[in-house]
Amino acid sequence: MTGQGPNRMPKSSGLIPPQDSHALRSAAEAAAAVRAGKLTSEALVSACLDRIAQREEEVRAWAWIDPDQALAQARDRDRETPRSWLHGIPVGIKDVIDTCDMPTGYGSPIYEGHRPVTDAACVAQIRELGGVILGKTVSTEFATRHPNKTRNPHRLDRTPGGSSSGSGAAVADFMVPLALGTQTSSSVIRPAAYCGVVGYKPSFGLINRAGLKFLAESLDTIGILSRTVTDAGMLASLLSGLPAGPTTFTAGKPPRIGLCRTPWWSEASPPVQQSLMQCAERFRAAGASVTEIEFPAEFAELNAVQIRLSSYEFFRALTHERTRHPEQISDSLTRRIAAGGQVGRSEYEAAVAFTRRCQAWMADAMSGYELLMAPSAPDEAPDISGTGEPTFGLMWTLLQMPCMTLPCGYGPARLPLGVQLAAASGNDLGLYRDAVWAERVLASR
Amino acid sequence: MTGQGPNRMPKSSGLIPPQDSHALRSAAEAAAAVRAGKLTSEALVSACLDRIAQREEEVRAWAWIDPDQALAQARDRDRETPRSWLHGIPVGIKDVIDTCDMPTGYGSPIYEGHRPVTDAACVAQIRELGGVILGKTVSTEFATRHPNKTRNPHRLDRTPGGSSSGSGAAVADFMVPLALGTQTSSSVIRPAAYCGVVGYKPSFGLINRAGLKFLAESLDTIGILSRTVTDAGMLASLLSGLPAGPTTFTAGKPPRIGLCRTPWWSEASPPVQQSLMQCAERFRAAGASVTEIEFPAEFAELNAVQIRLSSYEFFRALTHERTRHPEQISDSLTRRIAAGGQVGRSEYEAAVAFTRRCQAWMADAMSGYELLMAPSAPDEAPDISGTGEPTFGLMWTLLQMPCMTLPCGYGPARLPLGVQLAAASGNDLGLYRDAVWAERVLASR
Repeated sequence: MTGQGPNRMPKSSGLIPPQDSHALRSAAEAAAAVRAGKLTSEALVSACLDRIAQREEEVRAWAWIDPDQALAQARDRDRETPRSWLHGIPVGIKDVIDTCDMPTGYGSPIYEGHRPVTDAACVAQIRELGGVILGKTVSTEFATRHPNKTRNPHRLDRTPGGSSSGSGAAVADFMVPLALGTQTSSSVIRPAAYCGVVGYKPSFGLINRAGLKFLAESLDTIGILSRTVTDAGMLASLLSGLPAGPTTFTAGKPPRIGLCRTPWWSEASPPVQQSLMQCAERFRAAGASVTEIEFPAEFAELNAVQIRLSSYEFFRALTHERTRHPEQISDSLTRRIAAGGQVGRSEYEAAVAFTRRCQAWMADAMSGYELLMAPSAPDEAPDISGTGEPTFGLMWTLLQMPCMTLPCGYGPARLPLGVQLAAASGNDLGLYRDAVWAERVLASR
Repeated sequence: MTGQGPNRMPKSSGLIPPQDSHALRSAAEAAAAVRAGKLTSEALVSACLDRIAQREEEVRAWAWIDPDQALAQARDRDRETPRSWLHGIPVGIKDVIDTCDMPTGYGSPIYEGHRPVTDAACVAQIRELGGVILGKTVSTEFATRHPNKTRNPHRLDRTPGGSSSGSGAAVADFMVPLALGTQTSSSVIRPAAYCGVVGYKPSFGLINRAGLKFLAESLDTIGILSRTVTDAGMLASLLSGLPAGPTTFTAGKPPRIGLCRTPWWSEASPPVQQSLMQCAERFRAAGASVTEIEFPAEFAELNAVQIRLSSYEFFRALTHERTRHPEQISDSLTRRIAAGGQVGRSEYEAAVAFTRRCQAWMADAMSGYELLMAPSAPDEAPDISGTGEPTFGLMWTLLQMPCMTLPCGYGPARLPLGVQLAAASGNDLGLYRDAVWAERVLASR
């Protein structure tokens, strides 16, 4: 192994939380301080706004933020009896999710200044739980791949990934402890991995989607970017009613892990490959059983099937925009939409049927594992001209399985790498428990 | 059998198309006339507007309509080379589906005068296909059961059914040949049956839902109300890319039909029961095999499961409205939402798992049948204080099966009765072919 391997890289890239606001480290820590009367929501939100004031010019994570409005919410919360764990905690909202008191631009010039009249269900739920809607985080164009203005806070000439670009960058840069993202391909996992934070794409349908700008309704999934597994799992549990209890976020016995190189292993860079194998070793050393899982040969088609299926849906979901505002759609999305117009219904239905067969195979296979582990992205964050490749996210989205990326070190360019953990579809609580275990193992280095 | 049976009732209730506009009888007939240069879109839309001017004061099918705007669209279409079968044909849009140039009120006082900035995908697709958006048809409150202003055109003291109340009444009253509806419980099938028209709820997901106001996203399905099977099938094929060909709407050989009394047979009125058995006899006489299908005992829980599952989703989807505008939500919906707030995630997941088992059983069972036949509604349209019971729609929505109601006679109150036909999930083209066969048999009386 050469000096280029991830094991020789520094543990930190230099992004450290502002000294005077340890509460920004995690939502759970802040929430405990709020409950104990040691921290006000106003102080917490102020710390976020201070950080944003210092860093936003470079990072460009926010599509819209109004400090006065955020502070007013915080002061209102400080006057109330706490409504939930989330009370007084600021949350960033990806700008493809409607907010009734902030503009929602869907990452497209077509919707610049657009102001919905209704909060998306998840936004209204966060308010109901006592959360503070801090602002709107930058999305790529309609949550597709065309980049927007955000930069990777670890290196400003690199992409934060997409499509949840602003959510990844803002959480990584300690601007906010929690942010909502969405994933149709790899739009939560990829930016989280590139920015070095936790990214969580729940089982399909866990978080209600009313008020989300649809791209591909059979795949679009609302997810969470955070700095800890617990923060992501707690927010999702509150929104969905998942019965997370006192032991949910306590590491249990070491899980049975399927090491999943995936059919796209050769597209992972050597440092990503090394990093995954090293994580496997560490999990083994901590007591987990880690055995390689082999997929049927046809699983190699999953990524192509995801693209076919989603393109068919893009073409229809964006009919208003592609017929009325074609000149305001990027060239790359225009090509993707046009390709979707060529996918016939029979081809679409074949893709759905294929997906169902793979889901059934996977449901059976998961009786042998609590977790699968796989790369989160093919490489460290590439340069700012794109948002990176969704290669290692497509399959889990298509199979509706809950997955999380955890930061697991740095690559040769001193940028974060992630390890992706997936559980059986519907087993989000199991994923939290085992991801907390994995997070602890990775932190013990 | 007494004189109260449906077989003794008149064939027509007196609702007949205006003499001077035979083109209003079906979209296919009008489309053929437009293509042949014998009818302009302007003349067709004018005929619709005339009928509406005569009848709307009594029927109240429209939430919003602007004759000048509709005529302007028609004249634009008349200047163009026809874009599709739908070119120049007027379509009514249920008022829970967004339109960018007409108000969209979701059937709720909260949204009175609300004007979305974007067309729903299906509306933009209809425009792209050359269709004319005639206006917005009345919905019940958020497509739930609380009645709105529409009356049954056959008898003004009776409900048109809901939630697609205006679409059912407008199509039945020859105000428009085609209208979009939505179904979460029985909201296409019930109003179509009560109003004596064809109602079609496609397989889940056939018509893209971007821009639909969500109620229960795992169930909400965009459907079509029309006066013929062909009209409904043609529009759905155009929107989805279903490969409908020249033989799709030509009756083939008689199907194998499963007679499906359902676990709720005792809730069907005697005339509805008689009507279904008479339809079965007529299908048999026309050469179909009709045999009774028996469900596993647990199928009796399907309706309760649908209500539990949808209520969990209502509670979340309507969070903005229930937290910000509780006083503008009807008492009945308030109760339903509150019940949804009591459904835990575990209970919801058990409902989903139960549903999947029943779907799998049904998929197997459907290898023995092309069609199932069942009641469309428990009775003739009841009085105007409600919208009738969704009893006979819940199961098919939950099982994601495509279904159609066809008018099949009249009940003792001289109101229409329907027979519901369902095909295997995903077999919408098969449903069209066999429903065309059934439609011809029912017309031959």
